[in-house]
Amino acid sequence: MRAEIISVGTELLLGQIANTDAQFISRELAAIGIGTYYHTVVGDNWDRVVDAIAKADERCDVVIMTGGLGPTDDDLTKEALCHYLGLEMVRHQKSYDSLIKRFGSLNKPMSENNLKQVLFPECATVLDNDFGTAPGMLYEREDGKIFAALPGPPFELCPMFTNYALPILRAKTGKVLKSNVLRIYGIGESSAEMLVKDILREQTNPTVAPLLGNGDITFRITAMADNDEEAERLIAPVRRSLYERLGQYIYGEDDDTPEKVLVRELIAKGLTIATAESCSGGLIASRITDVSGSSAVFNEGFVTYANEAKMKHLGVKKETLDEFGAVSEQTAREMVTGLIAATGSDVAVAVTGIAGPTGGTPQKPVGLVYVGVAVRDDHGIRVNVTKNNFIGPRDKIKFNTATTAIINALKMINGKL
Amino acid sequence: MRAEIISVGTELLLGQIANTDAQFISRELAAIGIGTYYHTVVGDNWDRVVDAIAKADERCDVVIMTGGLGPTDDDLTKEALCHYLGLEMVRHQKSYDSLIKRFGSLNKPMSENNLKQVLFPECATVLDNDFGTAPGMLYEREDGKIFAALPGPPFELCPMFTNYALPILRAKTGKVLKSNVLRIYGIGESSAEMLVKDILREQTNPTVAPLLGNGDITFRITAMADNDEEAERLIAPVRRSLYERLGQYIYGEDDDTPEKVLVRELIAKGLTIATAESCSGGLIASRITDVSGSSAVFNEGFVTYANEAKMKHLGVKKETLDEFGAVSEQTAREMVTGLIAATGSDVAVAVTGIAGPTGGTPQKPVGLVYVGVAVRDDHGIRVNVTKNNFIGPRDKIKFNTATTAIINALKMINGKL
Repeated sequence: MRAEIISVGTELLLGQIANTDAQFISRELAAIGIGTYYHTVVGDNWDRVVDAIAKADERCDVVIMTGGLGPTDDDLTKEALCHYLGLEMVRHQKSYDSLIKRFGSLNKPMSENNLKQVLFPECATVLDNDFGTAPGMLYEREDGKIFAALPGPPFELCPMFTNYALPILRAKTGKVLKSNVLRIYGIGESSAEMLVKDILREQTNPTVAPLLGNGDITFRITAMADNDEEAERLIAPVRRSLYERLGQYIYGEDDDTPEKVLVRELIAKGLTIATAESCSGGLIASRITDVSGSSAVFNEGFVTYANEAKMKHLGVKKETLDEFGAVSEQTAREMVTGLIAATGSDVAVAVTGIAGPTGGTPQKPVGLVYVGVAVRDDHGIRVNVTKNNFIGPRDKIKFNTATTAIINALKMINGKL
Repeated sequence: MRAEIISVGTELLLGQIANTDAQFISRELAAIGIGTYYHTVVGDNWDRVVDAIAKADERCDVVIMTGGLGPTDDDLTKEALCHYLGLEMVRHQKSYDSLIKRFGSLNKPMSENNLKQVLFPECATVLDNDFGTAPGMLYEREDGKIFAALPGPPFELCPMFTNYALPILRAKTGKVLKSNVLRIYGIGESSAEMLVKDILREQTNPTVAPLLGNGDITFRITAMADNDEEAERLIAPVRRSLYERLGQYIYGEDDDTPEKVLVRELIAKGLTIATAESCSGGLIASRITDVSGSSAVFNEGFVTYANEAKMKHLGVKKETLDEFGAVSEQTAREMVTGLIAATGSDVAVAVTGIAGPTGGTPQKPVGLVYVGVAVRDDHGIRVNVTKNNFIGPRDKIKFNTATTAIINALKMINGKL
């Protein structure tokens, strides 16, 4: 079954909002084995909406419309859909009653316009709106094609779709689609793909899809099957092959982020961590403390922009700063070992670099960042400092600095660096 | 001129990402008076992509494609577009040279696949990619219709579109659409709208549109005119009226963020700032240091999750922590005054609270956050501590904590708190 999502709304075409409705529905459809082939956005215009429905009817089996179910004259989605399908609309008594009740409890006067929200074809399934005044509808034509109209606001659409539309669609497919996402850092997209090119090419079920993430790369393995167990059985060998080729770069799976994995590992190993940040300006600490439960492992953090702060809190030597500069391997090394000493933490992360856009020199360009990690154990202190050349605007350099620091800390405590 | 945006990418149809590219481009086009009539999303499939281009060519004058410019075999947007337009692609020497240089400076091997990224029709304008390896292209056909292909990742697309594609499109329209955005914090959306209801209703040119932002609210005043001066003349009186009604809540305009305005004011006044964060975990420091030039005013920052850190670095008294707890007005007050003493900064910001989702009690629920600001001047130290009850998930509580701290610091140095 092929699906098309038609979103109706001038606010989308003006760029006032992103089309998160289409994103949500696509993801939910994928999970029950219905592939979305097109998203279409049109404005609140009768002819263009009808035209979009006709086009979708031509090329897809499931046509889901979002938006344009409100009470104003602009809202014409349901009317255009029923016109296209040749269906007459009558008052839906249950929806009418709950509309009356809703306005009564809100102590607000109901406008005449609201009444059009409870008109539906008798042969359609009316989908309750638990969080607004506009119910949705779903209609299965004799040829088996499905047409649905859902409200635009995500907090109305998402529960309506999940609770009332999805079960009907799922009953028609009888299939499950299961995904396993491998998360990769430290290798370029094209190099990673080269390493697994044959696997990407060979696979049809499961499919393997690479995706550039937020500084990282993901490979999504997706299997279609009759049930969860069969899907997992299909995924397992492909997952194993990807681990064999890319294992050293895989830091997590599914909804993992570098900081989630790091906090999980620190908790599991009973280790504490401290941070000292120059160019990342607190972002490493902020990302680690984004993780619920991080207070158990996060000791303290310093944002030491100024040289004085580096000397005072971390014991960086004045001579080191004078001889090599604040942005240098030597300074990063003293920052991270000083941080262990100052905080008594088991793990320390320190970075120093140039986030730009100003402050770069030919010798030390914008994007040059030293990332230091130190781990203290029974044998002493292990220190690792990497030199990085990040590119992009300031926020991206900060973000990549933080990701590299977190990943390097993770590797250090797992003995992989 | 009518525009259509065609976004190519299976990740959009799987719902892995929202189509923020189409949102961004639509907004930018609207600002120069080009209406977007359709968004279309298709997968990485040759026939469907070519079909989408043909359909867009039928109904629009400007066709902008996003995504599918990468190095892999999946990436076929540019190839499909040039095929449709009947244009042959050859190596674009300038792009080739910078690709070689780029890989050289990254010390990474370049794969054969990367070379297809520098193939372009000789008659097209190649758009530089300042943040990635895939340049874009823009082509004006003899009939005046414009076709463009831009990369998918937003951090590559947005600057490329704004800096290189938009000027070409603007030159073709002749109309200017000018906007002035007022940024508001500290009042609810519906309350703000009530205060200016009549203004919102009356206006047609300029229009005034309220929009819920990231914790703040914006009012966008937009005028369409023949030139910049006329647009500004139309905007001025409406802007003045909004300031009269909402002035106390307006913290900035246009692309301002609370942190940008704060850094600007600190620089203007020659003041330095330091931060001490518990529940916001470094986010305040990170947001302040997101602003280019902040190193001139940002002294140092502490992430003091643990009580020991609060005592050691900020001089919070053990008795205060014992009697009132870490999350208390008293602790916030000692943190912020201690921070002034420890760092010698002119301005200090300190927060302590419960970001959740765990750690709340009936007396001190999740979302309870004390925000302290201290300002030192010739007359001594002024301190302000506010008690806040934020709602939402952990990241939202952290974000609102940071925004409130930054806005309060701004108000304090401007004598408004």
